[in-house]
Amino acid sequence: MSPTPVTFTSPTAPAAYSWEATDEEVSARYGVPIERIVRFDLNTSPAPPAFAARVLSEGRFETPLSEYAPSDYRRLIAAAAARYGVAADEIIVGAGADEILDIIGKVFLPPGATAIVPTPSYAMYRVITEQRGAQVATVPRLGATDGYAIDIPAVRAAARTAALVWLCSPNNPTALPEPDGAIETLLDVIAVDALADGRGAPIVVLDEAYAEFVDRSLVDLRERHANLIIVRTASKAYGLAGLRVGFGIARPEVIARLNPFRPPGSVSTVSVTIVTEALTDPTAAAANVEQVVRERDRLDSELTALGWSVGPSVTNFLLVDLGSAERAASTAEGLLRHGLVPRTFPAGHPLATHLRLTVRAPQENDRLIEAVRGLTTEATA
Amino acid sequence: MSPTPVTFTSPTAPAAYSWEATDEEVSARYGVPIERIVRFDLNTSPAPPAFAARVLSEGRFETPLSEYAPSDYRRLIAAAAARYGVAADEIIVGAGADEILDIIGKVFLPPGATAIVPTPSYAMYRVITEQRGAQVATVPRLGATDGYAIDIPAVRAAARTAALVWLCSPNNPTALPEPDGAIETLLDVIAVDALADGRGAPIVVLDEAYAEFVDRSLVDLRERHANLIIVRTASKAYGLAGLRVGFGIARPEVIARLNPFRPPGSVSTVSVTIVTEALTDPTAAAANVEQVVRERDRLDSELTALGWSVGPSVTNFLLVDLGSAERAASTAEGLLRHGLVPRTFPAGHPLATHLRLTVRAPQENDRLIEAVRGLTTEATA
Repeated sequence: MSPTPVTFTSPTAPAAYSWEATDEEVSARYGVPIERIVRFDLNTSPAPPAFAARVLSEGRFETPLSEYAPSDYRRLIAAAAARYGVAADEIIVGAGADEILDIIGKVFLPPGATAIVPTPSYAMYRVITEQRGAQVATVPRLGATDGYAIDIPAVRAAARTAALVWLCSPNNPTALPEPDGAIETLLDVIAVDALADGRGAPIVVLDEAYAEFVDRSLVDLRERHANLIIVRTASKAYGLAGLRVGFGIARPEVIARLNPFRPPGSVSTVSVTIVTEALTDPTAAAANVEQVVRERDRLDSELTALGWSVGPSVTNFLLVDLGSAERAASTAEGLLRHGLVPRTFPAGHPLATHLRLTVRAPQENDRLIEAVRGLTTEATA
Repeated sequence: MSPTPVTFTSPTAPAAYSWEATDEEVSARYGVPIERIVRFDLNTSPAPPAFAARVLSEGRFETPLSEYAPSDYRRLIAAAAARYGVAADEIIVGAGADEILDIIGKVFLPPGATAIVPTPSYAMYRVITEQRGAQVATVPRLGATDGYAIDIPAVRAAARTAALVWLCSPNNPTALPEPDGAIETLLDVIAVDALADGRGAPIVVLDEAYAEFVDRSLVDLRERHANLIIVRTASKAYGLAGLRVGFGIARPEVIARLNPFRPPGSVSTVSVTIVTEALTDPTAAAANVEQVVRERDRLDSELTALGWSVGPSVTNFLLVDLGSAERAASTAEGLLRHGLVPRTFPAGHPLATHLRLTVRAPQENDRLIEAVRGLTTEATA
């Protein structure tokens, strides 16, 4: 008997996340020993907070490894609430910010609905939208000279028929926040339009994954805008990407809508314990942010001195314009031959002439600078 | 200006998971010190494998805590492939088996489709189905005297118009596997019907969360049935529920359909590391299974000697019939006053006269036995 045929129920293939090449793949392709590979493409922080090793060796977690983490993540939520200045019933916990985005999609993006993505931005907004059977309405951001700000009139117009708007500030991969007051204005005009149109306002998701690097959050806007959901994460400034913990913050009635869609428990009890402590201790993230900012300025100066066109950044990564897609590609190849992995953008992407480079530890950044020096010397030789 | 109204796009509320009361809630309600509370309701194992503490204290994980786990979970998948006897491209990794179920729902349960649940079974099958906008077709299992086996003719008939069938063997909460050959037969007749009806066969999910307790898996059936997806977990026999790692196993073309729907990385690098070692070392789970089986038999004997009607079990939990819903409820209350948390079933549930009790460590089981002795003495006094 031949294999039973499978019922493939989705006739069209929605967007999927393009996974980065693994260390092993880079090592094999470029002949670089695996321990020499440094990830400049993941926007992670150079090291976890020092206290994490102590917590791990003590081995006392929220629950033993053999038990599920507490189903209400009580202490983690209390720590997050105190840290973000909100109430406990205004927070939902996920396995990374990505799970928060997924839960939002499940609740607020029915099949056939439209979600707005001001582009370029984080790739998962499109992936989650399309995987829900909803569609993306792309609204191009303004150009580099305008700080890649969202085009407020265009987003406003598109929002009149949208179920959801995906915002990210500071934005990945453009490294800049929206101008002061821009998101407030957008929320206000969306509310006015919704009232005029006799419909509820679309959900506005504001991904603040990089907020700690600017020490500024728009979380207070939730009080006036019940359609606002803020997303935060332990993956960036806290240096704990490997633990997979993210948060959604919104008014209690919105969190009450999201909570039934979270799984019985997706976050490891080890992760719950360490992130609870990270949020409780305000020095851990601050020390990391301070080093990242210092290294960001140094990396910017050095690369600029080597003739590179480095864009302004308030985040833990730099966006560099190489002038042409060909030069961006050949530069990426040159860096990869040194085991240094940049983030590239595919042909046709608005940033196809750019590379995105994570600010890493001083010695790792030194290697990047030296590699770039070599590449620019080659080019002018 | 009043708060912006929210667009609530789902007109009906799908089923949501009913979270168990937390330790704090049980402690507050029953006046039991929190450290005295023992969870007999979660079907976890009594303790994690001993090597886990060593791995944690050494602090060397797949990646540092500040980095995402490898996007392809390469070593974890290699260990799982070796353990389950399948190829690496026949496995997908999730944050617990629940995420595997969720991804399956995303790919194979379009809104409006029907999924079959032979009931009673694990609650998440209904939750995931309804949250996809699909509907559950309930097919009652046979009675206790028939080992709660699935009603093959009834499931077969329902499967002719279904997109998916959720199976669980050994089944939670009935503690027994399907009879030998039953699932093979069901897969065969579903394939025959699909061919006759000129349609693809529905996906059949076989949740083998408790397979290690019977040392038997039907994973080989995937070779003949491309519509079969097996689900495995590190949460039960491996004693690592707190790490949240589960697996889906199917033919490569099915895994290739699921993979685009997994998030960029939902599993902690700590979890990846420890579960890789657990799967590689065959003694860890075996030792736990051996103790659980020994304690299960003891618990069964002792509770039976106290006059309880304990059903047969091949798993790490017992199903006890208290004869009436009232006695089940009062018994649960009596146990909770001792800080011992049983799994109860709501009014109207086919097992409403039952309690489900996880087999735990010897001393914890002793506490349960003593508490039951007290309750039965009270009842006959």
